[in-house]
Amino acid sequence: MTKEEKLQKYEDWLFRRSAYQMALAVIGIDKLTVAPPAGSAYRDSRTAYLAGELFSIQNDPEMISLLKEMKDDPSVDADVRRGMQLYYEEAMKTMCISKEEYVAARELANRSYDAWLKAKTEDDYSVFEPYLKQVIETQKKLYGYRTGDLSLYDRMLDDFEPGMTQEKYDRFFNALKERLVPLIRKVTEAQQIDDSALFQHYDIDAQKKFMDELLTYLCFDPSWGYQNETEHPFTSWTCENDCRTTTKYLENNVASAILSTVHEVGHATYEHDVDDRYDGMILSEGISSGMHESQSRLFENYLGRTEAFWQYNYPVLQKYFPDQLGGVTLGEFVRMLNVSRPSLIRTEADELTYPMHILIRYEIEKGLFNGTIPTEGLNETWKKMYKEYLGVDVPNDRDGILQDVHWSDGSFGYFPTYALGSAFSAQFTAKMRQDIDVDEALRSGRFDACVSWLKEHIHQYGCRYNADEIMNMVCGEPFDVNYYIDYLEDKYTKLYGLQAEKETDR
Amino acid sequence: MTKEEKLQKYEDWLFRRSAYQMALAVIGIDKLTVAPPAGSAYRDSRTAYLAGELFSIQNDPEMISLLKEMKDDPSVDADVRRGMQLYYEEAMKTMCISKEEYVAARELANRSYDAWLKAKTEDDYSVFEPYLKQVIETQKKLYGYRTGDLSLYDRMLDDFEPGMTQEKYDRFFNALKERLVPLIRKVTEAQQIDDSALFQHYDIDAQKKFMDELLTYLCFDPSWGYQNETEHPFTSWTCENDCRTTTKYLENNVASAILSTVHEVGHATYEHDVDDRYDGMILSEGISSGMHESQSRLFENYLGRTEAFWQYNYPVLQKYFPDQLGGVTLGEFVRMLNVSRPSLIRTEADELTYPMHILIRYEIEKGLFNGTIPTEGLNETWKKMYKEYLGVDVPNDRDGILQDVHWSDGSFGYFPTYALGSAFSAQFTAKMRQDIDVDEALRSGRFDACVSWLKEHIHQYGCRYNADEIMNMVCGEPFDVNYYIDYLEDKYTKLYGLQAEKETDR
Repeated sequence: MTKEEKLQKYEDWLFRRSAYQMALAVIGIDKLTVAPPAGSAYRDSRTAYLAGELFSIQNDPEMISLLKEMKDDPSVDADVRRGMQLYYEEAMKTMCISKEEYVAARELANRSYDAWLKAKTEDDYSVFEPYLKQVIETQKKLYGYRTGDLSLYDRMLDDFEPGMTQEKYDRFFNALKERLVPLIRKVTEAQQIDDSALFQHYDIDAQKKFMDELLTYLCFDPSWGYQNETEHPFTSWTCENDCRTTTKYLENNVASAILSTVHEVGHATYEHDVDDRYDGMILSEGISSGMHESQSRLFENYLGRTEAFWQYNYPVLQKYFPDQLGGVTLGEFVRMLNVSRPSLIRTEADELTYPMHILIRYEIEKGLFNGTIPTEGLNETWKKMYKEYLGVDVPNDRDGILQDVHWSDGSFGYFPTYALGSAFSAQFTAKMRQDIDVDEALRSGRFDACVSWLKEHIHQYGCRYNADEIMNMVCGEPFDVNYYIDYLEDKYTKLYGLQAEKETDR
Repeated sequence: MTKEEKLQKYEDWLFRRSAYQMALAVIGIDKLTVAPPAGSAYRDSRTAYLAGELFSIQNDPEMISLLKEMKDDPSVDADVRRGMQLYYEEAMKTMCISKEEYVAARELANRSYDAWLKAKTEDDYSVFEPYLKQVIETQKKLYGYRTGDLSLYDRMLDDFEPGMTQEKYDRFFNALKERLVPLIRKVTEAQQIDDSALFQHYDIDAQKKFMDELLTYLCFDPSWGYQNETEHPFTSWTCENDCRTTTKYLENNVASAILSTVHEVGHATYEHDVDDRYDGMILSEGISSGMHESQSRLFENYLGRTEAFWQYNYPVLQKYFPDQLGGVTLGEFVRMLNVSRPSLIRTEADELTYPMHILIRYEIEKGLFNGTIPTEGLNETWKKMYKEYLGVDVPNDRDGILQDVHWSDGSFGYFPTYALGSAFSAQFTAKMRQDIDVDEALRSGRFDACVSWLKEHIHQYGCRYNADEIMNMVCGEPFDVNYYIDYLEDKYTKLYGLQAEKETDR
């Protein structure tokens, strides 16, 4: 084969991969949003078969040879080479698994998701427990096939954030604990902010009408984006011009759907903004979870919880809820949105206690795969750790171990990226605020100015560069966790009128 | 191979087919309901590739040999044999087409659909016209590859209703014309019924709330069914436990979404009720269009437009629309629902003029493929025929040739089955009314009694038997168009206080 023939073969392979990926993405969204549940078994068995076909394509030995041969060939275009390198790495992780085992794991994940949903709806952990055990055992087995020095859990962590290990995460979380635990204690002991106005009755139809306006403000365009509803909000996409988000409306909590929407639109905007040359390639689909979460958390917290953001949007919200919010000032509302209080639900947690929710999950995952935490009674382990780390009593499993979807399909190693992403975004935001007047953009309805900055500096590249490279390119320095901690310390010290550490030292 | 091995091979083949069919069905529903339009090109090219993979499986020469060998083997189970016969017939129709041409036709159909939607939205036929021409040329070419004595259009008709030909349809439509055209004239000249109350402003959110109650009444269970919204209502399914319908709400027409919903739920109920042994097989997926339409039209007209149906449902509707309907009696409302008036839109047409809408489409399709009607200026041909057959002036293409989706993807030969199905359902309903007290079931909220009868006598079989066989099994006699004509004559003679023909003769 000539080089051109090989490149054509590679293009054809990419196209075939992307066809199955598109199908699986659409079937996946459909399952989680609207598909009638009684049809699950029929659809899932066939979905698993199609995933197996994709698996065969991905692990085609002939293509792996071709990737190996070309991935470091300097005569090949650098973008193409980067894609080939990533595909090759991926294949090295999966080719040790047999197709039969892979398909069985996919089927299990689908059944396990259904069991999780049922268990959560009925608040009955026993419905989900046997599936969770099987999923854990399956992941132990499949990750065990890989070669190399990494421990089981390090392999999982690396899948979601290339290069991250327990050692690095331990350092990261220790830094957080060291400065945030005392801060959380101070905040908890300070004069509390009354945010009960956020938890009145908010008609869901009216919430949806406000959301339509908010989505427009966020530049989430219906030509390339669509928002639906699910039990657990998520974002999914088939290409840059097809990005779907979901949210969940709560009748007695006006902030939940809003903040989850802003979060998911952060993910969707990232994917939409990746250079369209990368459509259907790993350079758009393979962005690390930490980088992805950095953008969703940036949208949610560093933009969506600011006063400038609400200077524009609060009058709109008041228009829909005059009885509930007519007497609440902008300043009061923004304070309420930022209240910190140890709580049960990760997705509704404030920024300050959020990393503690992640730490709990990280510790549990680590223990599960390092053998120090048994699978038996994991719901009770959960409760103990919430008491220990956050001081809260978990009243039931629905608001405990069943709250998150991630473990149902075996996504262990994902959670830590939420905290890491939050930390990335502190550093990105600091740089963005140097370059443009973020607050002015937010308050004047020019959210697009933030999107443009993010597209230019981060989004367009997809995973053409890894997180370290992007951080250096954007900020001119490596990742530094202190941006995150300083931000939280500054924010909550002011919000709760605490004496800053520095002042104490004077 | 032993017989058992062959049967296993057949089972495996069925499963693989059904996996691709499921994927294509879900991607298809997604495209028509929620998928962001800017992503169409990306998704469609990949959808066409997957359709090509299915095409290869369907036309696998080794499987066709196996089908040929086993389809008439008396030692094979009769259900299995029937499936094999139908698959074999299908392959005989498609194996003459190359995969490349098939994939290209699929891609064209997708692009053509997008163009149709845009043209309809913007009322600009010129956007759709070039695609329509290409679709027609493509169908001429692809159907031209088939062998056998049937004319091009007869081949198309046979695809949607096996055994039907132009000769038979001509006889059918002539019978309708002979007795219905004078009746339509009489109705048009009679004292008109004022149905303006149906065309007031009806809040769409309130319509949706009524619809939720109506769907429950119709036994459309969310465990296996889901209703969405689209420009053109349709029904789609992946298996008996996953049947999706769509409807379209109009702000100034309360009946449109209701009747289209009852219609589509007729389709969905049919698929749901097919014996689940046939899931994933042609015996459930291959039901003829005429049979399918017989059930949707039966739901819509023979049940949904009756006074008994509304004895139960009208108070519910009045509850949501007290201002609009508080002063309209049940009797008046049912008369309004059945008003006959030559009109523009097929899906909103009354039962009496409905077959004329179909006749127009049938005549155009016949002319297109027999060479007597040119593709050029088809929108003008449409207008002329509406003037000629229904006496109405078509003011624009949106309400003219662009109103229906069918031609956009090349579904020529489909329309006539709507009229045929309506005629089937007259005969089925006559028999059902002999067996059970339909009106009592409808008025007492026992719609399930009708569903049970239909399941037992018709639905469960899928296409285990053809339409002729079903008709004979259910009614003990062959199809007779006079049931349909008698029903319409009787209904509209009474509704408009006309002198019945028989009385004139006395």
